[in-house]
Amino acid sequence: MVETLWLPSFELALHRNRGTPTGRLVQLATVRKDGRPSVRTVVLRGFLAETHRPHFASDTRTVKVEEIREHPWVEACCYFPQTREQFRLGGLVTVASSESRDPGLVKARNEVWSEMSDESRLAYTWPDPGRPRHHAVPFSTTPPDPHNPMPHFCLLVLDVREVDHLELSGNPQHRWRYHCDDRGRWSGLEINP
Amino acid sequence: MVETLWLPSFELALHRNRGTPTGRLVQLATVRKDGRPSVRTVVLRGFLAETHRPHFASDTRTVKVEEIREHPWVEACCYFPQTREQFRLGGLVTVASSESRDPGLVKARNEVWSEMSDESRLAYTWPDPGRPRHHAVPFSTTPPDPHNPMPHFCLLVLDVREVDHLELSGNPQHRWRYHCDDRGRWSGLEINP
Repeated sequence: MVETLWLPSFELALHRNRGTPTGRLVQLATVRKDGRPSVRTVVLRGFLAETHRPHFASDTRTVKVEEIREHPWVEACCYFPQTREQFRLGGLVTVASSESRDPGLVKARNEVWSEMSDESRLAYTWPDPGRPRHHAVPFSTTPPDPHNPMPHFCLLVLDVREVDHLELSGNPQHRWRYHCDDRGRWSGLEINP
Repeated sequence: MVETLWLPSFELALHRNRGTPTGRLVQLATVRKDGRPSVRTVVLRGFLAETHRPHFASDTRTVKVEEIREHPWVEACCYFPQTREQFRLGGLVTVASSESRDPGLVKARNEVWSEMSDESRLAYTWPDPGRPRHHAVPFSTTPPDPHNPMPHFCLLVLDVREVDHLELSGNPQHRWRYHCDDRGRWSGLEINP
């Protein structure tokens, strides 16, 4: 395992902010088909075993998954209000879907599905996200089987290659930039905030 | 003044979440020169009088202002933890800098500068953001004049053209999409969450 310089700080921040309602919320930025940026809130569900890749639950029917399939490089912004620090994680996303065959991805997808709340799983039974809503068609209120992911449930697995860590609490503030080279070796540099 | 359908909901959300530490924090997504997305946290400083355009304080020396000058279409994501709702505001940014001559922009830039805290103003005296940090050079601890903005202080003024409003608190959730046409007329549609 290559040392990931930024990961200990990130895990410490998650721990220190675990009591806040936004502690595991992340804003995920993608690029649309027309080249414009797009950003929405997702939940950090955990890290892939061994590779420590952060992952988020999603739905293959959403525009964001379409965008990622076309432009897999994304940036995730994690702001921690308790400790007043921000991590920006840039890198490439792999979509772990019902069609994935990689054993690690299949396992992670099944695990996240079974660990989610009934309320979160229920949303995957609803009609296509982003389409006009028809109130005549009632939404299901029966959560799906926790041991059998819905076909369009997917994990977005982020292979982090760049990190920008800003600590606002100091005066002056502190900021570091981390970069991963093609061989997977990390380097870091303190920069002006 | 053309009716902006989404604005009352957005102002209500700001009001209802005014006590939370993240109540005025927004994640602003831009596109980099290499076509990849970029996202960081900024503070919503207010709305431009009459046009109701949201604006954020920034520094013309930052990469984000460079990115905006090249690709002025951005998306801002506002997540409100208290009421569990999200607004995504897409549109074009005007950079109100020391070179701006528009009286409304000049006035807003001066006002935001004078209303900011000494701590926030102080950051504009620091060396170029994002450059390697040299600890031998001490950062200034004397806040600049509140009545005379630093030359590289700027406002990012967002002319909102698209809005996606998601309410997570309902079961099922509620989501609306708003769109502004070329004549400045807004239309809205309820969509599947």
